[in-house]
Amino acid sequence: MEPERRAFLKSSFVATGGMAAMAAGGLSLVSPALAEASHSKLKHTAHYHLPANAETVHWGYFSKSLKPQVEIASGDFVTIETLTHQASDDAERMIDGDPGAESVYLWTKDKMGVSPRGAGPMDAKLGPGGGLGVHICTGPVAIRGAEPGDVLEVRILDVAPRPSANPKFKGLAFGSNAAAWWGYHYKDLITGDKPREVVTIYEVDATGNRDWARAVYSFRWPGVTDPFGVSHPTIDYPGLPVDHSKTKRNFEVLKGIRVPIRPHFGTMGLAPAESDKVNSIPPSYTGGNIDNWRIGKGATMYYPVAVPGAMFSVGDPHASQGDSELCGTAIECSLTGTFQFILHKKADLAGTSLEALDFPMIETSEDWVLSGFSYPNYLKDLGPEAQSAIFEKSSIDLAMRDAFRKMRQFLMHAKGLTEDEAISLMSIAVDFGITQVVDGNWGVHAIVKKAIFAERPV
Amino acid sequence: MEPERRAFLKSSFVATGGMAAMAAGGLSLVSPALAEASHSKLKHTAHYHLPANAETVHWGYFSKSLKPQVEIASGDFVTIETLTHQASDDAERMIDGDPGAESVYLWTKDKMGVSPRGAGPMDAKLGPGGGLGVHICTGPVAIRGAEPGDVLEVRILDVAPRPSANPKFKGLAFGSNAAAWWGYHYKDLITGDKPREVVTIYEVDATGNRDWARAVYSFRWPGVTDPFGVSHPTIDYPGLPVDHSKTKRNFEVLKGIRVPIRPHFGTMGLAPAESDKVNSIPPSYTGGNIDNWRIGKGATMYYPVAVPGAMFSVGDPHASQGDSELCGTAIECSLTGTFQFILHKKADLAGTSLEALDFPMIETSEDWVLSGFSYPNYLKDLGPEAQSAIFEKSSIDLAMRDAFRKMRQFLMHAKGLTEDEAISLMSIAVDFGITQVVDGNWGVHAIVKKAIFAERPV
Repeated sequence: MEPERRAFLKSSFVATGGMAAMAAGGLSLVSPALAEASHSKLKHTAHYHLPANAETVHWGYFSKSLKPQVEIASGDFVTIETLTHQASDDAERMIDGDPGAESVYLWTKDKMGVSPRGAGPMDAKLGPGGGLGVHICTGPVAIRGAEPGDVLEVRILDVAPRPSANPKFKGLAFGSNAAAWWGYHYKDLITGDKPREVVTIYEVDATGNRDWARAVYSFRWPGVTDPFGVSHPTIDYPGLPVDHSKTKRNFEVLKGIRVPIRPHFGTMGLAPAESDKVNSIPPSYTGGNIDNWRIGKGATMYYPVAVPGAMFSVGDPHASQGDSELCGTAIECSLTGTFQFILHKKADLAGTSLEALDFPMIETSEDWVLSGFSYPNYLKDLGPEAQSAIFEKSSIDLAMRDAFRKMRQFLMHAKGLTEDEAISLMSIAVDFGITQVVDGNWGVHAIVKKAIFAERPV
Repeated sequence: MEPERRAFLKSSFVATGGMAAMAAGGLSLVSPALAEASHSKLKHTAHYHLPANAETVHWGYFSKSLKPQVEIASGDFVTIETLTHQASDDAERMIDGDPGAESVYLWTKDKMGVSPRGAGPMDAKLGPGGGLGVHICTGPVAIRGAEPGDVLEVRILDVAPRPSANPKFKGLAFGSNAAAWWGYHYKDLITGDKPREVVTIYEVDATGNRDWARAVYSFRWPGVTDPFGVSHPTIDYPGLPVDHSKTKRNFEVLKGIRVPIRPHFGTMGLAPAESDKVNSIPPSYTGGNIDNWRIGKGATMYYPVAVPGAMFSVGDPHASQGDSELCGTAIECSLTGTFQFILHKKADLAGTSLEALDFPMIETSEDWVLSGFSYPNYLKDLGPEAQSAIFEKSSIDLAMRDAFRKMRQFLMHAKGLTEDEAISLMSIAVDFGITQVVDGNWGVHAIVKKAIFAERPV
């Protein structure tokens, strides 16, 4: 073997985690052999930058038919800007002076920067796309050679808040939290006018020096008449421009409260195969709006590829969220992420932990986190009306059942346990938590510590 | 003020956490004023030891009518031995040579060391008490002067495994995990004979040097004919003596798996007021079988007192459990705890965080953890048939609703937030997890970090 060739192998092997997997006693889903197989295909790696603007985002849906913004090779890096779909709650802090955000949010009586917003019809009453799906997603990124049956590994190498472009707020970033009609609390209020929607604007340190956010002010949703003249008494369409001459801002909100930040991407995943245009709200087997705060810097996602090119998109950036995302949203705050994409071909997956993966799998530095949903593939499970039916059928009880079954399968398949071993271990060492109760397809995640298996022979 | 009086105040103040509360910026539910009020009543503190034996335990139920094992004053310490109710899965390791355990587990054709086992009738078909409740509880401890409306603070100062008394197993402790018919998985098995019950015996280091447990062996439940001649094809009565000449032990179980230990008490709480004898399985407003692994060393519990004397009992010791306790049990392992009891009188609670507390509240070094249940007070909520009805009506969805409402109330009442502030904060900084799905009254807990409030003025 020529020296150049050996050097290349070494470098790609290290870069792709194979060495780390060996050193840590197999604490990765990617076995050394799989790492070598997946990386023997790499020729070089490139680093792309995908800005967020009216040309690079799609709003409110995933689609296998979208034209890729960039087509990359396995192993490549992409830095991707993402915009929160709630920036117009405070345009002064989150849009003004930011050309990308301004182009996306552009909305006059004649023109929308991005249209449609949502997977609904263009002539929907609420606006183009009907707001059936709300997340501004950047992408898609197509991975060359990806085919159904493959697994796409996505490493989140870095995540940073998008600073306010308004010089008045230098060094700061902002996010919006809407306690909205789709929140878990909405029909269960105990004080004041009922129901009501309330938006709270949070401030995040964009310099990275402060690991907590604080509330700046809150306001009751004032009702918005959009530039097309449609009235929105509730937050029923994304990106409605709030006119603060019509709000009453309360700056005495959550005084002295420091909210730990957990920057992550609420919505991130691949295009599903089942439908052409899929509402971005319910998560499913190819990921999407999982809304798990563990999908942040240092985490790795594994997705089953459902369509040629995989078609990865990311949006719904969050500065912080609690397990449940109770009121309907997180601190919705624009972020920029740097990702590396590794394609694992179906033929190389046989016998590995990733064989037949049929759900989005999260790996953090310490844990494996499996995502259960009320319906694991609701597009298939609920038939032709799935995209509306899912909002009527959500349940934590159902999502727990799915999380249990997925974790059992993972322990049996990836760790070689018998069913009895898996079930005992799940009872004494796996933690089940409530991911979200607001996205139509509710979620329960199952967490198991990787260190448990450090001495496991397989 | 006389010097002695000043010295006493200081000493009680420090001992009761008032100083800690001040130093940490109010990071305790007990305000300095409440600490002083509650402790001005202390005359001295005493330390009692309550062993576990046939005289000191009650098996399978809470009851306000039990004679206290010890009556203490507020501020006193009690070291309490607890025994797992699954020790007879491996008597050699968990009972033999241990006089306390032997006296409790004594069962011949003529005699039971402890009878009844459960809240059912003495002539129940399965055995006295019917196994309607399974936990061996040590106590009750009566707190002098405790009355309904008061709050009892219970600090868990230490927790240690109970070493095997069998010289063959010196330095080790053992626990049993039963994947039983009441487990979440039971009707959802995918391999082998269905359904089946499987018991796995785990080894724990009793010296404290090792922070993980490992499986020793497992066996299929063989069916047991008890000393009274009653046949038990499933684990339908507690403390059934397993005859290992009839089991097939599999020592090749969970090889190389290290289970992190989280020693805690699954069942701990006060006697409820609603019924005389209450099945120990479903948790409720006075605590009981909450099965949250956070109730371990360093944690503090706050319980609403429902009956005179409070009547505290503790049992169901666990070496480890995951959130959900999926298969029906934890690593059920005898433990000894040291507790301090502080009584907060109703009159002193007005205006404090603990006023009107109507559920069991967990405080750890970092978090407040609120326990939601499918039915917060099922004995009241479900009427005269509550003790059987609860097993038909459990749901995580219901428990989530309760956890949400409790956390909202806590943030509004204890932290002085408005409802809108509380709801926003819950969405971005409170984590909801699944406590257990096996105890009849299923649980969801809500966790909020205390440090969030470090600079909160109230």
